[in-house]
Amino acid sequence: MATAEVENLQTYCREVAENAKRASRELAGISGGVIRDWLRHSANLIRVNRESILSANAQDLENAPGYGLKDAEIDRLHLNPKRLEEIALALEEVALLPSPVGEVLDSSRRPNGLDVQKIRVPLGVVFFIFESRPNVTSDAAALCVKSGNAVILRGGKEAFHSNQAIVSLLSQAAKESGIPEHAVQLVSTTDREAVGHFLKMNDLIDLTIPRGGESLIRRVAAEATMPVIKHFSGNCHVYIDEGADLEMAEKITINAKTQRMGVCNAAESLVVHVKIASKFLPALAKKFDELGVELRGDSRVCALVKSAKPATKDDYFTEFHGPVMSAVIVDSIEDAIKHINHYSSGHTEAIVTKDISRARKFTVEVDSSAVIVNASTRFNDGGQFGLGAEIGISTDKFHARGPCGLRELTSYKYVVFGEGQIRE
Amino acid sequence: MATAEVENLQTYCREVAENAKRASRELAGISGGVIRDWLRHSANLIRVNRESILSANAQDLENAPGYGLKDAEIDRLHLNPKRLEEIALALEEVALLPSPVGEVLDSSRRPNGLDVQKIRVPLGVVFFIFESRPNVTSDAAALCVKSGNAVILRGGKEAFHSNQAIVSLLSQAAKESGIPEHAVQLVSTTDREAVGHFLKMNDLIDLTIPRGGESLIRRVAAEATMPVIKHFSGNCHVYIDEGADLEMAEKITINAKTQRMGVCNAAESLVVHVKIASKFLPALAKKFDELGVELRGDSRVCALVKSAKPATKDDYFTEFHGPVMSAVIVDSIEDAIKHINHYSSGHTEAIVTKDISRARKFTVEVDSSAVIVNASTRFNDGGQFGLGAEIGISTDKFHARGPCGLRELTSYKYVVFGEGQIRE
Repeated sequence: MATAEVENLQTYCREVAENAKRASRELAGISGGVIRDWLRHSANLIRVNRESILSANAQDLENAPGYGLKDAEIDRLHLNPKRLEEIALALEEVALLPSPVGEVLDSSRRPNGLDVQKIRVPLGVVFFIFESRPNVTSDAAALCVKSGNAVILRGGKEAFHSNQAIVSLLSQAAKESGIPEHAVQLVSTTDREAVGHFLKMNDLIDLTIPRGGESLIRRVAAEATMPVIKHFSGNCHVYIDEGADLEMAEKITINAKTQRMGVCNAAESLVVHVKIASKFLPALAKKFDELGVELRGDSRVCALVKSAKPATKDDYFTEFHGPVMSAVIVDSIEDAIKHINHYSSGHTEAIVTKDISRARKFTVEVDSSAVIVNASTRFNDGGQFGLGAEIGISTDKFHARGPCGLRELTSYKYVVFGEGQIRE
Repeated sequence: MATAEVENLQTYCREVAENAKRASRELAGISGGVIRDWLRHSANLIRVNRESILSANAQDLENAPGYGLKDAEIDRLHLNPKRLEEIALALEEVALLPSPVGEVLDSSRRPNGLDVQKIRVPLGVVFFIFESRPNVTSDAAALCVKSGNAVILRGGKEAFHSNQAIVSLLSQAAKESGIPEHAVQLVSTTDREAVGHFLKMNDLIDLTIPRGGESLIRRVAAEATMPVIKHFSGNCHVYIDEGADLEMAEKITINAKTQRMGVCNAAESLVVHVKIASKFLPALAKKFDELGVELRGDSRVCALVKSAKPATKDDYFTEFHGPVMSAVIVDSIEDAIKHINHYSSGHTEAIVTKDISRARKFTVEVDSSAVIVNASTRFNDGGQFGLGAEIGISTDKFHARGPCGLRELTSYKYVVFGEGQIRE
């Protein structure tokens, strides 16, 4: 690419980010009611302008084979009246959530009479990078602005026209509802270099959220100069403790593994206490055979389950995202915890147990975003946890861990009221 | 440096970080009472071994001229019985603080009967880089371990022997109190390359905190692959609103500027509403003349104050850390807020006003870690805000903002209790 073009692109990106920063300052003075009205108005505009969105989407679908999209990807890209109604409903649901901004997180009156309050405030500007689902466009815009932030949306080229149609309606609604024009901006180029430019602007952008495949997330994390919320997928474990209710254990294991195989909170690895292994594993293996799930185990697992294949070390690190589960037999809960903390990606782990002290030990010592006692790993999800809506599930420990809702898109400030106090 | 040596150093650093990670896992199972005992025992050992610490410190002082340390730096390095007693007392104060670990931040019972709790947990491993004050060694170790983290301490070469003496006592206390041996480790080389190695280990280290000059912090932020809490100094503002109590305004401005000039929460810039400028500024300037503080103002300030010098744009961005203050006259609170958000480093800003709606506007729209109404900027401090102790003041907005105490050294996890629930 010629230097002149790069300079142009850089100027354009800088302008977008400066507009977003200005919009974020203006949002600070705008009440939650105005934002709620914007969300509802946006939902209406999406309903009213159904045809224009669908025709933009048709253009994307026409181009899809040229981008080499597979059937599943084309399906995700595809909009129809039902999906558009879901998009509108999602906006109305976010409208109903309480605004996180202004919440007093902590407060005290100091000995010198100062009133100190720790108050939840927006982060500022969020740069949101995503792939081909057009519904993510409006979801992300809704969550970012609902939490008081301006957002720069960078969607995949495959959904460009659909995204443009949706964002132009959100912008129209903004104008008509009294929200800053640049609160929601779609990057109007699909040039890959644009992402690199934005990732350098830590003076203007407060947070980057990449949503997509692991390679996208790794690239963004490596290049970004501002904080990134990372959503890697999960290598989730189910541990069956000695003395567990084996019926419950089987039900949970099968649900965690097979209810939806391609998602990050599906279980990938089974850890079984030696004392119940000979009762539990052969029965489970029978069910797994019927369901077409392959077990890959250590030597003790393979001795108990004829259909099991030997597991390699890599298998224990692997997120299969499909009908395979690694398995290991352990001699104690301590060994189970050690195994999990070693191989897990820190996403979600479950224990099935009747023993309260071992449940406690497991929840305290297992270092993952969600630790679940006697239920399926599949529950680690913003909706299931009552967060209202989620922008992703973080496998980081800093700032945001696990499902990220509105609160995870905020910061805080200290607000202090005095009557002339000075420091002696 | 030869490759063989680098490999060696790398291996050493990796070992330190792996030891820390293991210690952090062990700390998860250790109760707050044991940590409290460790802190008290450490304080005792520091009192009992006063002479050996002082002789290690004497060695550092002897080497100090060779490192080109200035008098003020040598003074900071210098330990005496009084300073050692302060170190011991600080450990005992941290012992008395409630442990942040295990706090339930949020909880709900879901419609399917699942009990979901959001629980505060340690971050894991903290890498703490600091310069020449030996008291920082024990303070940082105490705060990190009190919040359940293992810590890798990397002090300046100037204080190496003092740090070693202090950390060996903390380690002895750990052994004798039942804390993991590697919960506190001092990097035993002052090779600058070691820092670079640690900054690459985001698989083992959860957070890096650099404490020192801006160049150190910038280097660390640029190189680190894990989150960094950054403590830049502050370009703090005092805004005198129209109708302010001018006596209070003068008292607060003088305190904010002059009570301690070299600290990050000292004021560097004055913003004055045009309606009270002609009354306020000449009187203040007279006091400033007596105090030896130079005003640098825009043309309207210079017209009112003969001793004022013209301010450049750079002056408004500058943290003088000394007897200089920039000043500007504004026509409205909106202009004051715009000026502050443009030039401020986001640390601390104060407003002096009698008007409640303008106070509200200022606290909402000014984007800084602390916004103070009718009191000195000098109060933005962990001790003053009641945090108990602080590891620094963050100018970031992500995770930790403003004074960082024990809570800012923690993360959280979701702990879920069910009775066999599966996802339909």
